[in-house]
Amino acid sequence: MDNSVSPLPEPEAPLAMMEIEKTPISTPMHDMPPPPDEKRYDEDVKSTWQCGSWCEYIFVVVVSSILLLAAIVLTVFWIIYYRNGYSLEDNKLLFNFHPTLMIGGYIFLSGFAILLYRICRCCSHLIVKLCHVFFHACSIPCIVIGFLAVWESKNQHDTTHFYSLHSWLGLITCGLFVFQFVLGFFSFLILLCCDNATQKFRSTMIPIHASLGVATFMLAIGAAVTGLTEKALKDLGEEKYSGKENGTFKGFDEEGIIINTIAVILIGLGILVPFAVRRTNSPASFKVYVTDRI
Amino acid sequence: MDNSVSPLPEPEAPLAMMEIEKTPISTPMHDMPPPPDEKRYDEDVKSTWQCGSWCEYIFVVVVSSILLLAAIVLTVFWIIYYRNGYSLEDNKLLFNFHPTLMIGGYIFLSGFAILLYRICRCCSHLIVKLCHVFFHACSIPCIVIGFLAVWESKNQHDTTHFYSLHSWLGLITCGLFVFQFVLGFFSFLILLCCDNATQKFRSTMIPIHASLGVATFMLAIGAAVTGLTEKALKDLGEEKYSGKENGTFKGFDEEGIIINTIAVILIGLGILVPFAVRRTNSPASFKVYVTDRI
Ligand code: HEM
Ligand code: HEM
Repeated sequence: MDNSVSPLPEPEAPLAMMEIEKTPISTPMHDMPPPPDEKRYDEDVKSTWQCGSWCEYIFVVVVSSILLLAAIVLTVFWIIYYRNGYSLEDNKLLFNFHPTLMIGGYIFLSGFAILLYRICRCCSHLIVKLCHVFFHACSIPCIVIGFLAVWESKNQHDTTHFYSLHSWLGLITCGLFVFQFVLGFFSFLILLCCDNATQKFRSTMIPIHASLGVATFMLAIGAAVTGLTEKALKDLGEEKYSGKENGTFKGFDEEGIIINTIAVILIGLGILVPFAVRRTNSPASFKVYVTDRI
Repeated sequence: MDNSVSPLPEPEAPLAMMEIEKTPISTPMHDMPPPPDEKRYDEDVKSTWQCGSWCEYIFVVVVSSILLLAAIVLTVFWIIYYRNGYSLEDNKLLFNFHPTLMIGGYIFLSGFAILLYRICRCCSHLIVKLCHVFFHACSIPCIVIGFLAVWESKNQHDTTHFYSLHSWLGLITCGLFVFQFVLGFFSFLILLCCDNATQKFRSTMIPIHASLGVATFMLAIGAAVTGLTEKALKDLGEEKYSGKENGTFKGFDEEGIIINTIAVILIGLGILVPFAVRRTNSPASFKVYVTDRI
């Protein structure tokens, strides 16, 4: 209760209530009891759906989606065209599942799972939540198989595990993902059964879950970018990567350019997606984190 | 004007004004004219300075500062202890200025320049702004000398420029930094001369400048992390980095662990600093971007 917000002194409360009642409430909020001591600033529909916000909405959502799709397509293209595709038998081709499943599976699905909160502001909130969980659930097999692929391929090579910066970042990312999934599943889906009793707890969890989720996404991108750098240096080697042949410059290596492009796209996503979910499509003076809704 | 916010219907405006006037205003806001059509939510002092927010404030600010200092100390230690220190003559030692000035100069100063907006909420806003500009101005020589160091050392080695992912990210970062500096300098310091006339323009620029600034900071960290990965693989080599000697595992390489630690610290900063400036020390239901103040 100490954290409660009452910008108006107690005696004036009835007057203030009058004011609020005169304002038309037209968001799908009336199906839950209005929280007693909390203001919700996303009720002004008039200013919410104006062109400025719509343009920004479409820009952010469409560009993010294109980048997510571009990342997956480029990765698969890179592996098939330059890295000889996939195979469970051949050790070198077994590794190829790793980047594909991590970028095309994990980052792609997580990205859309986060973006959902921005794309579907007008849908029922429960449906958005279920889709969010579903997307994340789908990325679990990707992470597990992607991890096993690199683990097995390293074992066959007899390489040490977890020495590189990339493997550290990858490990932290996976740990945070599991933590977030368990926490989110428990607190937002299970506790929904006793909706009113857990409202306070859940609204405390939301900013934590949202911030940690965005952090995990950015860590995943950090991991992917260092992984791509490693792969470029190990497979191409410095000479080929820098476009040289027998010491003379022949123009940049095509595969190198593709690897760099995938990484730049991922970095772009790491900046755009957190930005997208942290902005609403209401004007700047209305500060609401979309992910703050329960 | 289309984007202006008037949550109360026109006729009730006088009543609403009355309400607002009854609420005591006790922030250092009264030295500028209250904007006509904008609500400011950071005026409730009672709930702003409570323990929860204070703890979070101290946690975020202190931890960020420690990480920034740790990054600079570890980098200098790494270079001096494992990379034979600095020298303008020796080509290999000339390179060493690059990581030091980029992490110890650019990222360190930028980090603090951004954090200032969080640390000094109670200081005069003009002073905070001037310090912000000063910190960023100090990082210009670091960037220039850091860039020249790697450029020269590459020329002496006769290596191609701008082939690697790291150099792409580095270039984008530097470009964005220059853009941000010019834009910020022009719009917030110069235009302050005609304060009232440019208020609208400046308040439009703020979210753009703040978001781009945070994005630039994260890009810088992405660049540094890929740079560290490259350096570890090139200087240590895969065998030494993975802790092997003649094919048998001898325990992880010390230098490798230090490089990884620097990078993990930087990634931590890339997550914590944006988080710090995007949260106020007021409770979660008050949504104000600290950087939104003009
Ligand atoms: C979210 C994305 C990713 C995660 C969470 C992740 C996770 C991991 C983990 C935990 C390891 C350590 C396995 C071990 O030591 O046994 C690893 C190894 C590796 N990964 Fe990734 N990875 C990701 C993306 C990528 C990408 C995009 C590439 C690019 C090709 C890549 C390339 C590698 C390589 C070459 C190794 C083996 C060498 C090393 O340990 O550094 N990874 N990854
Ligand atoms: C904000 C941080 C950084 C920025 C903006 C940055 C920028 C750049 C740029 C623009 C280049 C290209 C120079 C050229 O091609 O002529 C470069 C090269 C290089 N940097 Fe950095 N750098 C940063 C941090 C680091 C760090 C922390 C390291 C770690 C040791 C590092 C290691 C290298 C290496 C090894 C090269 C030469 C190889 C290459 O082009 O990839 N950099 N850097």
